[in-house]
Amino acid sequence: MSNKVIIAIDAMGGENSPNKIIEGIKISLNSNKENFFNLFGKKEILEKQISKSKILRDYCEIIDTKDIILDDESPLTAAKGGKNSSMWKSIESLKDKKSDISLSAGNTGAMLVISRLLLKTINGINKPALAGLWPNQNNMNVVLDLGANIECNEKNLTDFACMGSALFKSLFENDRPKIALLNVGLEEHKGSDVIKKTFTILKENKIKNFNFCGYIEGNHIMDGEIDVIVTDGFTGNVALKTAEGTANFITKNLKRSLNKFSLILSYNSMKKFKEKLDPRKYNGAIFLGLQSPVVKSHGSIDAFGFAHSINVCNKIVKGNLIEKIESNLITVDA
Amino acid sequence: MSNKVIIAIDAMGGENSPNKIIEGIKISLNSNKENFFNLFGKKEILEKQISKSKILRDYCEIIDTKDIILDDESPLTAAKGGKNSSMWKSIESLKDKKSDISLSAGNTGAMLVISRLLLKTINGINKPALAGLWPNQNNMNVVLDLGANIECNEKNLTDFACMGSALFKSLFENDRPKIALLNVGLEEHKGSDVIKKTFTILKENKIKNFNFCGYIEGNHIMDGEIDVIVTDGFTGNVALKTAEGTANFITKNLKRSLNKFSLILSYNSMKKFKEKLDPRKYNGAIFLGLQSPVVKSHGSIDAFGFAHSINVCNKIVKGNLIEKIESNLITVDA
Repeated sequence: MSNKVIIAIDAMGGENSPNKIIEGIKISLNSNKENFFNLFGKKEILEKQISKSKILRDYCEIIDTKDIILDDESPLTAAKGGKNSSMWKSIESLKDKKSDISLSAGNTGAMLVISRLLLKTINGINKPALAGLWPNQNNMNVVLDLGANIECNEKNLTDFACMGSALFKSLFENDRPKIALLNVGLEEHKGSDVIKKTFTILKENKIKNFNFCGYIEGNHIMDGEIDVIVTDGFTGNVALKTAEGTANFITKNLKRSLNKFSLILSYNSMKKFKEKLDPRKYNGAIFLGLQSPVVKSHGSIDAFGFAHSINVCNKIVKGNLIEKIESNLITVDA
Repeated sequence: MSNKVIIAIDAMGGENSPNKIIEGIKISLNSNKENFFNLFGKKEILEKQISKSKILRDYCEIIDTKDIILDDESPLTAAKGGKNSSMWKSIESLKDKKSDISLSAGNTGAMLVISRLLLKTINGINKPALAGLWPNQNNMNVVLDLGANIECNEKNLTDFACMGSALFKSLFENDRPKIALLNVGLEEHKGSDVIKKTFTILKENKIKNFNFCGYIEGNHIMDGEIDVIVTDGFTGNVALKTAEGTANFITKNLKRSLNKFSLILSYNSMKKFKEKLDPRKYNGAIFLGLQSPVVKSHGSIDAFGFAHSINVCNKIVKGNLIEKIESNLITVDA
């Protein structure tokens, strides 16, 4: 079992759990048997589901936990009272080196707080960041921070650049990802003081590990020219949600405009289009900067989307994310 | 002529000007004869174009200007050297009370700087803001600031709320627009200090002139539930451009996915869809907070889009925007 990627799964977090979690693991095992799953949750319920399938019995171990952190709990309440929860125990198994990575579809705020309580930050990192995958014209890119840090200084943004490039390398086997800072224009004088200072640091460091490409504007995030897009958690969160809202708005209006006849006739092409842009493929935010990686799957995601998050976990561990972050870091005084 | 809305037009700014400008005025005059146009630009060129059409001759006056501010000029160079330009002179005609509103498809940065140089701010406003129109499920909403102010305090954001609601009232004859602050969550404890302070001011003032609805997240901007969305210029600019990029990405991929056969068959329904979301209808950012309104049309917009911006100018003047802003303002110490 030593070559297996051991994934700690919070089996109780998110809508329709643990059903979708178990189903997601099954989908993932059909194409990839490199993972082993430590399943944290109510033993009685989980055992019933797993006992039906030989492959699940072979590749999962259940760890009984009493409590569940609810989606509407405040992060602090969850952290204070959640020591016996499936989420807490799954993250704790990273601290105890019993798992390589932890995955949950539960309460994001609670996950961030509990991870920070239980796991140390990587030497040199003050603020861990939440990174996500965005579809683009070529494939996908990494955007961070998506909301873990509302206010950031130039050291934080520089760290995000280093961590984001390490993540991109781990996921896509690319040695020199192209990095840019999200800004309101391309000229050097544009943007806040923090952004301009970060620009200077990244430019002056002549980074060996990635290719710094300057600024990028919001309308070019999805062009596929840049691999890693760096911003503070406020801007990143607004940008991500605005993109999501725009995509929903357009597809909703498109459906309304198309009559039934042309919907039937263009069924196959619309299916291709939907498959390419299936948000379940880009599901999974990665909490970077702690000594073990923690991954968040969307609360409302289905089994297929959860299987995609498992795949991301596998790539992160096999790609040696933490080592890559450590060797990428730039020393900044701030 | 006293009842006419007098629009000062920078006839030389933007791609394909002055052709598209003249064509846009003609389109606008076909449906609305309430406007009169002071056209600023090279007399020789403009006269040739106008002489062909009686309606243009009747509704336009040409004011000869020597220079043109180019799109790639820095705002400061443009302001220093641009005193004889079509843009400068058209804004100056507001100061001299010869026009009610100014419209340009030229250099945005130059327009912001020249407007601030020539026009006083409304009493009580420190930072004017750039507001835009976004399509939503019902019709459209106002979002501001879109990039005039990178850093904002709680007084600025409160002013934006008051100015944005005045703009919405002028454009849509709605007496109690619903206002929200763009944030990373809906709970009161979320967001930066500035946002939380603005929330308190707007909540405590029990505003008569608009209905404060708390926070809104990026994915709900286009739902149609909120009429005016308030944010700082950095976040607003990133959100606007990200929405634009996402819309382009989806429509590009959709076109690629549809085969020729289904494209022909769904021609009419796709046309309806495109018409509803035609970006030319939402074209036109409004610079709010100065003693006269200044409107910016997109540089690459065509004559049809420019005609829409003329329509926005007409509504702003007839809706008494400036008076509405003055009577909306809240006193904030900051």
